[in-house]
Amino acid sequence: MGNIVKNLAVLGSTGSIGRQTLEVVRAFPQHFRIIGLAAAKNFDLLAKQASEFKPSFIYCQDRQAFARRSVSGEFLTPEEMACHPEVDTVVVAISGVAGLMPTIAAVRAGKQVALANKESLVMAGEIITKEAARNRARILPVDSEPSAIWQCLNGENQRPVRLILTASGGPFRNLSPAQLEKVTAEQALKHPSWHMGPKVTTDSATLMNKGLEVIEAHWLFDMPFDSIRVLVHPQSIVHSLVEFEDGSVKAQLGYPDMRLPIQYALSYPQRLPNPELPRLDWDSLGELNFEPPDPVRFPCLRLAGEAGRRGGTYPSVLCAADEAAVALFLAGKIRFIEIAHLVEQVLAQHQNVARPSLEEILAADDWAREKVSQLSAGANPC
Amino acid sequence: MGNIVKNLAVLGSTGSIGRQTLEVVRAFPQHFRIIGLAAAKNFDLLAKQASEFKPSFIYCQDRQAFARRSVSGEFLTPEEMACHPEVDTVVVAISGVAGLMPTIAAVRAGKQVALANKESLVMAGEIITKEAARNRARILPVDSEPSAIWQCLNGENQRPVRLILTASGGPFRNLSPAQLEKVTAEQALKHPSWHMGPKVTTDSATLMNKGLEVIEAHWLFDMPFDSIRVLVHPQSIVHSLVEFEDGSVKAQLGYPDMRLPIQYALSYPQRLPNPELPRLDWDSLGELNFEPPDPVRFPCLRLAGEAGRRGGTYPSVLCAADEAAVALFLAGKIRFIEIAHLVEQVLAQHQNVARPSLEEILAADDWAREKVSQLSAGANPC
Repeated sequence: MGNIVKNLAVLGSTGSIGRQTLEVVRAFPQHFRIIGLAAAKNFDLLAKQASEFKPSFIYCQDRQAFARRSVSGEFLTPEEMACHPEVDTVVVAISGVAGLMPTIAAVRAGKQVALANKESLVMAGEIITKEAARNRARILPVDSEPSAIWQCLNGENQRPVRLILTASGGPFRNLSPAQLEKVTAEQALKHPSWHMGPKVTTDSATLMNKGLEVIEAHWLFDMPFDSIRVLVHPQSIVHSLVEFEDGSVKAQLGYPDMRLPIQYALSYPQRLPNPELPRLDWDSLGELNFEPPDPVRFPCLRLAGEAGRRGGTYPSVLCAADEAAVALFLAGKIRFIEIAHLVEQVLAQHQNVARPSLEEILAADDWAREKVSQLSAGANPC
Repeated sequence: MGNIVKNLAVLGSTGSIGRQTLEVVRAFPQHFRIIGLAAAKNFDLLAKQASEFKPSFIYCQDRQAFARRSVSGEFLTPEEMACHPEVDTVVVAISGVAGLMPTIAAVRAGKQVALANKESLVMAGEIITKEAARNRARILPVDSEPSAIWQCLNGENQRPVRLILTASGGPFRNLSPAQLEKVTAEQALKHPSWHMGPKVTTDSATLMNKGLEVIEAHWLFDMPFDSIRVLVHPQSIVHSLVEFEDGSVKAQLGYPDMRLPIQYALSYPQRLPNPELPRLDWDSLGELNFEPPDPVRFPCLRLAGEAGRRGGTYPSVLCAADEAAVALFLAGKIRFIEIAHLVEQVLAQHQNVARPSLEEILAADDWAREKVSQLSAGANPC
């Protein structure tokens, strides 16, 4: 990267992606400077991060915590940081719907947006991609699958014919429908290959995570839904593939470690030698398996595809209903298979709004959460 | 490719790569025009090709054949065609040492050189790459493995840290040393995944083909030998992989069909939709296996690596000794395992010439063939 120094705002710095972003920053202090740190609740960790990186701007939901303890940095909201002139790259590592408004603020300000939050593109993909184009903002995917696609598209000057997203298949890939009825939150949180937060780990187990990635890829790469496929690949070595017009296919591979796509989004178009990142062991690569996902046992993938194709407020309802249902499952209030049932019921009852405004998107989100709460009131706890 | 029309000279038009090149040309008559056709011996097929493509220039070793039959086109040697001003792209599909001088002529004339002949780079890599740089010629690899690497490097602006060439492992991958003693030419010519000529098919069975590709990749991509690895991949779906500084790996995949890399070399930097090219069937991709090659049963890979590292005239001796030994094997005069033994003996007796001239390279080639003939005079026929 030569002498380039990028000024970063890390929104969601105390979460899994946020912490790994700071690990990358720590490895390359000559290239990345932390200008802003924002966290929701983990004030202790945020204070530690602030004392290490000395950001100019800082945010925590619990504003009173700042009064109790001196922490370096001016208090700014995530949206304010996202559009601050001193910031070059905004890392949106906030999970769920809370990532939407900072993402919008960052693209409106024409920033480089290293986007780990898939919900924002799922819910408001049309608005975000239009605003990004209008303001010359660049969305740099941080998630491993869209990063793989982005890397494979590098240097190609034609639109591909197909994107193939790989999915580990999650911890329940080989369970029978009867076994799926009984799985617990504890089991769902044991992901076979990736270490991630509880929401996305549960979404990996239902394959909803892959469904959201299909919608995200649709917006990121301007590809029709019929040209996006999902393949189960249990080893999580091949992160995704791209098929071109001549039948040639490119894939991006690596051991599952989020620091690689995070670092690539930060260092793009360069690559940086980071000795802490794992390297494939060519002697023991062994076997890579691929199989189509089972739509019967894992209906969330189909639900996401349908919501994405219908567009409008359906994807927001999908996201919000899933987030609410997963929270109920993690709290032990509903069974695993009820996550998909609840999402399906909520989608079935939704009155779509075509080309929605941000307000309509957020209203659909609220409506879906409320609906999950109503529908689950009579549910059987596991 | 818009309105671009490229004028091609296909040297070796009646061989396997030559015929497949003409299939690609047939699919895109609006983009590729055959200006020259050159063949060694198959005059009948050459005459048919000439009547279809109406080249301006034509060549066949048997010049008298032209007298017996009227064929369109002015008689020019392959070297003359390779540097003719009307020619944009020279497809060097001549196999063996005969491809060397036309390749040199093409790079000296600053042509685009779609290079299927690996011997020329193995024997004279230093001369060819220097002449190409000096004359702004571009070498476009046609073989599937270097084409895969080239595609993976597309858009990357840093030198990779490792190239990983895949090898099918050939038809004898799982044979014991005792079984390898007894294999016949007929068995060697049954390649499990690729349809190629007899020389390269035998080289695939000994892994010498992969050894030559390692030396070729060294020159094509300016990579040290220690940064080039070989992995056996029996399905021949992943054609090669490239590892970058950050640990990210890219691979190029496709069903084994030489028309894809041929077409890519011709259409580069564009890709063309060719319905005749096979497409990966995502539902049945199944399993991809990778394992390190066995250096004991397949010593040719080691011999090639050593010859490449030593440089000078060693690679020419490797090539020529292998070509002569394979010819003896295909004629039933030596056993399969004696190919490697002969090559090893000839290399051991060679007096290297560092930084050789073309004349010294060709003299080493002659010397090695003569040596194989002497050493094999006392060999046991199978």
